[in-house]
Amino acid sequence: MKAANEISASVIGRLPRYYRFLCELQNAEIVRISSNELSKRMGLTASQIRQDFNCFGGFGQQGYGYNVEQLKNEMAAILGLNTLKNAILVGAGNMGRAVANQRNFEEMGFRLAAIFDKETSLAGLKIRGVQIHPADEIASFCAEHHPSMAILCVPYEAAPEITDELILLGIESFWNFSHYDIHTKYPGANVENVHLSDSLMTLSYKIKNSEIR
Amino acid sequence: MKAANEISASVIGRLPRYYRFLCELQNAEIVRISSNELSKRMGLTASQIRQDFNCFGGFGQQGYGYNVEQLKNEMAAILGLNTLKNAILVGAGNMGRAVANQRNFEEMGFRLAAIFDKETSLAGLKIRGVQIHPADEIASFCAEHHPSMAILCVPYEAAPEITDELILLGIESFWNFSHYDIHTKYPGANVENVHLSDSLMTLSYKIKNSEIR
Repeated sequence: MKAANEISASVIGRLPRYYRFLCELQNAEIVRISSNELSKRMGLTASQIRQDFNCFGGFGQQGYGYNVEQLKNEMAAILGLNTLKNAILVGAGNMGRAVANQRNFEEMGFRLAAIFDKETSLAGLKIRGVQIHPADEIASFCAEHHPSMAILCVPYEAAPEITDELILLGIESFWNFSHYDIHTKYPGANVENVHLSDSLMTLSYKIKNSEIR
Repeated sequence: MKAANEISASVIGRLPRYYRFLCELQNAEIVRISSNELSKRMGLTASQIRQDFNCFGGFGQQGYGYNVEQLKNEMAAILGLNTLKNAILVGAGNMGRAVANQRNFEEMGFRLAAIFDKETSLAGLKIRGVQIHPADEIASFCAEHHPSMAILCVPYEAAPEITDELILLGIESFWNFSHYDIHTKYPGANVENVHLSDSLMTLSYKIKNSEIR
């Protein structure tokens, strides 16, 4: 079993996918699965899967397969999904609303406690039962409820200032949909970026290079 | 200069970020920038930047810095942003609408030609001027307009069937917001995934492991 800081980003990147597959297997009422069968379904080699799992001490027995429910629970624990984390969402524009409408925050251990937008006419509206507040209430809300994570759905221009404020208010983790690079100024923050235009540019690159393949 | 298939995924992953930074520099009317200054702003080492650029033959002169506009244009060409690619979007739910509302498709060379949804009551509505059509018109639309890319914003359950149909209709590239793993069945397709719950799980993992740091 490796220490957390010894586990490579690519192994970590595969963990959510393992977890998703295990959930699907459980929904399909599959109780056991061999690493061969899992590898076929996931498009990875069985050896890769065993190597990945060995980073966490390995699970299940060779030749006997993995117990799906047990492995899913182990994966959930590794990913920290069982720990409750209070989150706020800042920016209730198109993307913010789409993100707030995601049904599976709770399954990942996140509780969306409040939504903020500078557009005061949105105040009082609710998305999936979560109320939108005026942006100038962020400080008082954080002082009272101590959320640890912020979902940043504001435009690029607004992101630096709001990030500074949120860091001062004790927010340590960001699910960042803006194109502001939080890590450059705050290397200690936990940041997961969803940069849609970066993703689209990467697709453009793949398309270009598949055409000349 | 390296062949496209020799360039590592991590270098490719940094290209959109370079491009974004160069656009910002140009907006700020900065004409030249040294690799040292660029590295400071981006939080990378100057040596890393030079190594990355050398994959593409290197740009600019040492000690003299890079011409911002020229480097931005080179980066755009490498990313294939100058080539027009016709795209359709399938699934006009919350996420599909938020994606369709992104303003920067055209800057990446993608033209959103049509939106499809199985909910026929949405047919005829427009998002940013792009019309929503009933899902059963996908085949005739593709036969006439030959889009090469599809943005998949349908639920997981609907994704395998619609992907099969789109592949048969000649779609080669997918910007995939569903949790269906297209690559497992179609390893030759160009796929860029935006898996929001994977991203949220990765953040959960980072939070968990920063707490025990």
